[in-house]
Amino acid sequence: MTQQQRIALDEMLRSLPLDLGGDVAEQRELFAQMMETIPLAEDVVTERGELGGVPVVAVGIDGASARGTILYFHGGAYTIGAAELSAGLASELARRSGTQVVSVEYALAPESPYPAAVEDAVAAYRGLRERGVPARDIVLAGESAGGGLALAAAMAIRSAGMDAPAGIYVASPWVDLTLSGRSATTKAAVDPSVTAEGLARRARDYAGEADLRDALISPVFGDFSGLPPLLVQVGGNEVLLDDATRLAARAAAHQVSVRLEVTPGVPHVFVAFAGMLDEADAALTHAAGFIRTVLDTRPG
Amino acid sequence: MTQQQRIALDEMLRSLPLDLGGDVAEQRELFAQMMETIPLAEDVVTERGELGGVPVVAVGIDGASARGTILYFHGGAYTIGAAELSAGLASELARRSGTQVVSVEYALAPESPYPAAVEDAVAAYRGLRERGVPARDIVLAGESAGGGLALAAAMAIRSAGMDAPAGIYVASPWVDLTLSGRSATTKAAVDPSVTAEGLARRARDYAGEADLRDALISPVFGDFSGLPPLLVQVGGNEVLLDDATRLAARAAAHQVSVRLEVTPGVPHVFVAFAGMLDEADAALTHAAGFIRTVLDTRPG
Repeated sequence: MTQQQRIALDEMLRSLPLDLGGDVAEQRELFAQMMETIPLAEDVVTERGELGGVPVVAVGIDGASARGTILYFHGGAYTIGAAELSAGLASELARRSGTQVVSVEYALAPESPYPAAVEDAVAAYRGLRERGVPARDIVLAGESAGGGLALAAAMAIRSAGMDAPAGIYVASPWVDLTLSGRSATTKAAVDPSVTAEGLARRARDYAGEADLRDALISPVFGDFSGLPPLLVQVGGNEVLLDDATRLAARAAAHQVSVRLEVTPGVPHVFVAFAGMLDEADAALTHAAGFIRTVLDTRPG
Repeated sequence: MTQQQRIALDEMLRSLPLDLGGDVAEQRELFAQMMETIPLAEDVVTERGELGGVPVVAVGIDGASARGTILYFHGGAYTIGAAELSAGLASELARRSGTQVVSVEYALAPESPYPAAVEDAVAAYRGLRERGVPARDIVLAGESAGGGLALAAAMAIRSAGMDAPAGIYVASPWVDLTLSGRSATTKAAVDPSVTAEGLARRARDYAGEADLRDALISPVFGDFSGLPPLLVQVGGNEVLLDDATRLAARAAAHQVSVRLEVTPGVPHVFVAFAGMLDEADAALTHAAGFIRTVLDTRPG
């Protein structure tokens, strides 16, 4: 069954007109069209708001009680995507972990290059704290570029002297904007949706004049000391596979509690395909377990 | 509480007279004395036997029903340790995962250098299969050198054309006998029990005339294609930390289902300290969940 699911998903992704390296305005439109074809479950409730001056979309499950907040960062290579378009994946996390998700509408490049997104992420976290939400009740999460942003935000939160969140969950994170991982080439043929060339163009859009090796742009080169427990999930068919494995190794070297889960034969951000792909459901169940554990564990 | 536990364990390990690089006969004696001070739970049953001509120790829980078999390989740098001395950790795995454990008394170096241990491991697996145990009901597991041996055995089983086991669980595996990981130096000060120098001496004892980079000696350089799901657990205070992270990355690159769990601030084979260290209990619970999942999942 799951073999069939994987083949069908691979073919679907390969047939999409999306080209990560293409014209930004065009790709934003195509991405929005694609995501809007996937209906949200009927009980998903979204509401626009703001946190610390940054627009956000709150995502919850109608009638469900929520303990803890996930501050969520959507994917899209820092240049496309939107908080609303991540509501499907965000709602699956909310449902399975019994939390409320707040998806951050961080500023996109090239109009707003680095450090705008990191500043928005930190402002949203500060806004949540100022509303009285304890740091231990907050998990940072994100997919693809949003995963990198969650990690950069955690480092910037530490630099700002604020309390660390309870944990960080990233799915298929993009954490090396220099694209120096071997999988950038070794996995090019099996990755149905992402190319290193496309990402390289978007990396230049995002970094502007800044150094791509800056830790807040490419967290894999950063200092993870003092960061909370980290769960990293990635597929085996990803040019970004090595971003995940090197991230885990780096965080481990810096005495972070790290869990890395690699699911073979599945594509970039495969967790977004819950209901279509058994591996997505299994990974989300693990992620929800991790989120619940870090939220329910009081620092000793 | 757990901070106190970690400090107490670290001090205990630093106070031990064990010196991995010392005289083998002396170290075997010291290791046995040390392990025998830790009593087995009253309901643990051990029984000597043989599998495929190799001596083994069956480890089970009195009165508990067991589904599935863990073929277990003890640690000790391929030169010290014994199946009986691993009964504590083996019995914790049996208890928590509802399995029977068979701990293999593989031949030790320097008397029996490579490939004796790998041959014994494969012979024991073949013996289990010939007794009618399906490959899908067997998990390979091991700690330290035994983790490396479990992986080498899985590769040798594949080469021999036998069906793969259901999964592989390794704790603090030693998979690079060339000791090329950065943690060999960066973690030297925080590792309370293992030194790269000691391991280097034992690596020469084990490899004899063979190349330390041989995949069956240092599986981290090997081909993981077709290997079953793999769980790797390691502590943050280990000179062998990079063995675990590079193992996970290598297996992931070869499309293996991989889970890596890094627990910060704990020493080599910390899972052996269940009951003394909360992190050990948590990791063993995860390991048991992994073992149960791979045993209960029928190939699709």
